[in-house]
Amino acid sequence: MSRHKFLNIVVALSLSVLFCCGPAKAKSKAIIHDAEYYVLEAQHGEKWATEDEELDKKLAELKEKHGTPPNIIHIMWDDTAVGEIGVPQIQKTRGWETPNMNKFSAEGIYFARMYTEPSCTPSRAAVMTGRHAVRNGMYNVGFPYEYGGLAADEVTMAEVLGQAGYATAFYGKSHLGDIESSYMTKQGFDEALWTPYNQVPSMYTPDLERAGAIRPGSLNDGVIPEDPYDIDKGWRPKGYIWALEGVKDGPVKEWGTPPNLEDYIAMDGESQKRLSAFMKKSIEAKKPFYAAYWPQMTPFTGFPEKITASAGMLQEAIARFDVYVGELMEELKTLGIEENTLVILMADNGPMIHNGPPGMVETLHRGGKGDFLEGGVRVTAHARWPGVIEPGQIVGDIIHETDLFTTFASLGGATKYIPTDRIIDGVDQTALFLKGDTHSRRDYVFIYTGDELAATVKGRYKRDWRNAVPGLSGAEFYDLYNDPREVYPMMLQLFPTKPMFSIMKTRHLMMKSAYPDKGQNRDFPFKNIENARPESVEASKPRFDAEKLPFDPREAIMQVPEWDNLDRNWGAGN
Amino acid sequence: MSRHKFLNIVVALSLSVLFCCGPAKAKSKAIIHDAEYYVLEAQHGEKWATEDEELDKKLAELKEKHGTPPNIIHIMWDDTAVGEIGVPQIQKTRGWETPNMNKFSAEGIYFARMYTEPSCTPSRAAVMTGRHAVRNGMYNVGFPYEYGGLAADEVTMAEVLGQAGYATAFYGKSHLGDIESSYMTKQGFDEALWTPYNQVPSMYTPDLERAGAIRPGSLNDGVIPEDPYDIDKGWRPKGYIWALEGVKDGPVKEWGTPPNLEDYIAMDGESQKRLSAFMKKSIEAKKPFYAAYWPQMTPFTGFPEKITASAGMLQEAIARFDVYVGELMEELKTLGIEENTLVILMADNGPMIHNGPPGMVETLHRGGKGDFLEGGVRVTAHARWPGVIEPGQIVGDIIHETDLFTTFASLGGATKYIPTDRIIDGVDQTALFLKGDTHSRRDYVFIYTGDELAATVKGRYKRDWRNAVPGLSGAEFYDLYNDPREVYPMMLQLFPTKPMFSIMKTRHLMMKSAYPDKGQNRDFPFKNIENARPESVEASKPRFDAEKLPFDPREAIMQVPEWDNLDRNWGAGN
Repeated sequence: MSRHKFLNIVVALSLSVLFCCGPAKAKSKAIIHDAEYYVLEAQHGEKWATEDEELDKKLAELKEKHGTPPNIIHIMWDDTAVGEIGVPQIQKTRGWETPNMNKFSAEGIYFARMYTEPSCTPSRAAVMTGRHAVRNGMYNVGFPYEYGGLAADEVTMAEVLGQAGYATAFYGKSHLGDIESSYMTKQGFDEALWTPYNQVPSMYTPDLERAGAIRPGSLNDGVIPEDPYDIDKGWRPKGYIWALEGVKDGPVKEWGTPPNLEDYIAMDGESQKRLSAFMKKSIEAKKPFYAAYWPQMTPFTGFPEKITASAGMLQEAIARFDVYVGELMEELKTLGIEENTLVILMADNGPMIHNGPPGMVETLHRGGKGDFLEGGVRVTAHARWPGVIEPGQIVGDIIHETDLFTTFASLGGATKYIPTDRIIDGVDQTALFLKGDTHSRRDYVFIYTGDELAATVKGRYKRDWRNAVPGLSGAEFYDLYNDPREVYPMMLQLFPTKPMFSIMKTRHLMMKSAYPDKGQNRDFPFKNIENARPESVEASKPRFDAEKLPFDPREAIMQVPEWDNLDRNWGAGN
Repeated sequence: MSRHKFLNIVVALSLSVLFCCGPAKAKSKAIIHDAEYYVLEAQHGEKWATEDEELDKKLAELKEKHGTPPNIIHIMWDDTAVGEIGVPQIQKTRGWETPNMNKFSAEGIYFARMYTEPSCTPSRAAVMTGRHAVRNGMYNVGFPYEYGGLAADEVTMAEVLGQAGYATAFYGKSHLGDIESSYMTKQGFDEALWTPYNQVPSMYTPDLERAGAIRPGSLNDGVIPEDPYDIDKGWRPKGYIWALEGVKDGPVKEWGTPPNLEDYIAMDGESQKRLSAFMKKSIEAKKPFYAAYWPQMTPFTGFPEKITASAGMLQEAIARFDVYVGELMEELKTLGIEENTLVILMADNGPMIHNGPPGMVETLHRGGKGDFLEGGVRVTAHARWPGVIEPGQIVGDIIHETDLFTTFASLGGATKYIPTDRIIDGVDQTALFLKGDTHSRRDYVFIYTGDELAATVKGRYKRDWRNAVPGLSGAEFYDLYNDPREVYPMMLQLFPTKPMFSIMKTRHLMMKSAYPDKGQNRDFPFKNIENARPESVEASKPRFDAEKLPFDPREAIMQVPEWDNLDRNWGAGN
């Protein structure tokens, strides 16, 4: 089938949606979804339209009652598997507890099947744009220096909700790149304090007491001793930064002074202080707000004092964060916005079981960060909205992190600002949030590893594409209810799903050929930082005198093709 | 150290217990515990004595209030890992639910660390005698024909509580042998309806519709077709039975007619009917009762109609049983004995992940039935006793199934009937039941595989003895909080635990040399069954005319040494 012909089909699908679903659905008529969504809509469109009418009415009543559409606080942190939070029975097994987060979960929805991308940068890019990271070239995990980041023409949650009148703020770990186009204040946020990378720079502290155990693995000055054979000092990254801050399209500044680890650790407290001020300011201005608070949580050196029996690095960090979650819930109450604020608690991907710290392990699912196994892409996730979201719900539906983009837009009356010139993977899950179990508008997930479609989930079934051998299909099908750890690949029993999966994949790829993937932006890092330290300025330029080289050092930086997956071996690859 | 000298130590230990703990502790002064218990008692004896005074007072008040000590209903079924019941979040992952059992769990104690022996027969022998199966030769899983079973001189829970005035009954799967000494009515139960084996005989149904998928794997008449090369028809077991029934020391009868599968499936309903009648009779007689109801749950052919999304064989069975649990709780209320009845729900060992049916899989822990990994020996377990056991408890303490023997005796005022001429592995966990989290009197488990000490658990640490290579210890230590799946064996980090584990093991072995392991009894099966069918009578005799053989066929049957583990390859062996 030619691309042209398939585009016709897409248009026809969109039209059929328009005709079948009436005015309630009109708000999302222009969004280009992935093909599988239309397959579901063709079967349930009428029911969904009726539900949407009811939901629109409910949201209108709430807006009437509170004066604004709901505030949204999206809290997302690192590497925590589904089951680790909100299930005290599992926490007993693991030697720790999070009473406030568990209470949070019990007061709202516990998502049993929240899917994400398999590692930090892709996951954060996906939830921020409502699109799989493969569509915008953000599928590699960024490290100093990445020389790349979220492209200027990607449209973020902040840009969508901002246009609908929301005040928007970002605090914490963005991990969306080190170049100017990826600065959070260039991506629509009214104000932001963010780290462009993950927590790895915290290992570059020369603080002997804390860095002791990880020396001499790291390669930065102050961490490794002098080495007489080390003749290429330019090979080591220098000029790493803790965080950047600024206001929308305004000047950007460095925050904190590396390698001072105290500054690094202070970032979460600072974020929390700013979030509190931002909420108050928004309330005063009678504006609804959207805050993405993606806590840094922990330096890779951990915390010297232990507050859990487990003493796992992440457990120690989350147990500390748990106290804050309790305080934040209290603050929402005190501010009088509890019943007009949706709060999401979730992780960005599975635990770092490959080369990670102790305690980052598999529990219910096999695999972790970097894997396209369920353990890599099913995360802890909880939603709370007193008076709107029914308490005590355990939801078994499939939901994907990109759905938050579409759902937040829908709740905020901002669906019309979602771009319609590209595929939006997110679907509107307002019904799932407000009506609960069995109300998802998705029963599928496409799981990418880098730029490669690795597996596809449809309901309880999963097909592994990456380990398939050309020719007769082998044992590459899973029943996720009876084999949640994916250890018994089936052939004969699940052959009836083979053509179903094949046609799903084909439809997905045809949509991609109609709307091809785009790349990230690439550049030198840390440009235009007002208070840049000399080492940050150094980092923003070629490290060598270009005159002395027979090639242009910029060339490689600009041409690293984001579609060639550099991080193929981050996970186990299976 | 000579055996004599160590015995002196044991006596000295017992005496010190007597002197340190005063009259409240006197009730258990004569029990011979394993060495590790005395190590704990030496540190906590005083506190325990104070607690015991308080607990004795509480139990006396309850007895005063209700007229009898508490009734005890011990429900134990097959192959269910910790986490599978009582955790709706995990059930969502697995595509099924048990609302009544989850309610049960939430109304009492969820045990996060209930340990058992690693497979059916050993586990059932251990809980019934308060002793590790290795001590009474019951460490092999029985199949038709086993030619062996629980020895006559073992003392069961029924014998202990019976002496204290309890009415006692057994219903369901005993799996404790096919010889006369193992008949439940010879082991102290006032009345019983029991299956001597596991569910394997249910595969011998010639019912084509249900047996279709498992043919021709089984070898019984009616299951495999005629085969012209099959010249030893005597090799196939015949005369298997569904169940036996009787009253204490009275005549024993067959119940149900194999291979009629309807009879087999009717056994649980019949057990439930009898349990109800038994309770009413006991109440009328103003006697406290102890009922072990170990449901059969499922034939190996499964159920044709599915009531769960999972459709896993065990899930289907437990979901059906769940309805009964709800009814039983209602019945206790109706009978007015709810607040004087302790009910335990638990499994006998981990899931049958090796060669088991679909859906019997690992979740939180690695390993399953037959393994000495945590997945083999940590089971779902819940206790409910309204008004006495605080609701909503999730208990992280270690408890071992043998502790139920000692604890039931303590609750029933029957501790003095526990034999004092042998090691009792169970410890009195009344404090854990009545006071909750952190009140266990055990922080250790010795895990046997067959007759071999395979691993030892102490608190969060575990040492694997079986995979150790003589000489310098290798990576054979685990941190179970941070590695509940035992996939990161440690060496350097946990070397400080090496001598601690070594001395624990040595003390354990010294106690064993003072009180050596004993064997099971051996005999021909199915003797003295009043209504024995001809094939059952056949089974109770040598299969051949002894005159025609140059050896005595009885000899091998009598001499199969139970201390030579016949079932070494049941599990993965790791």
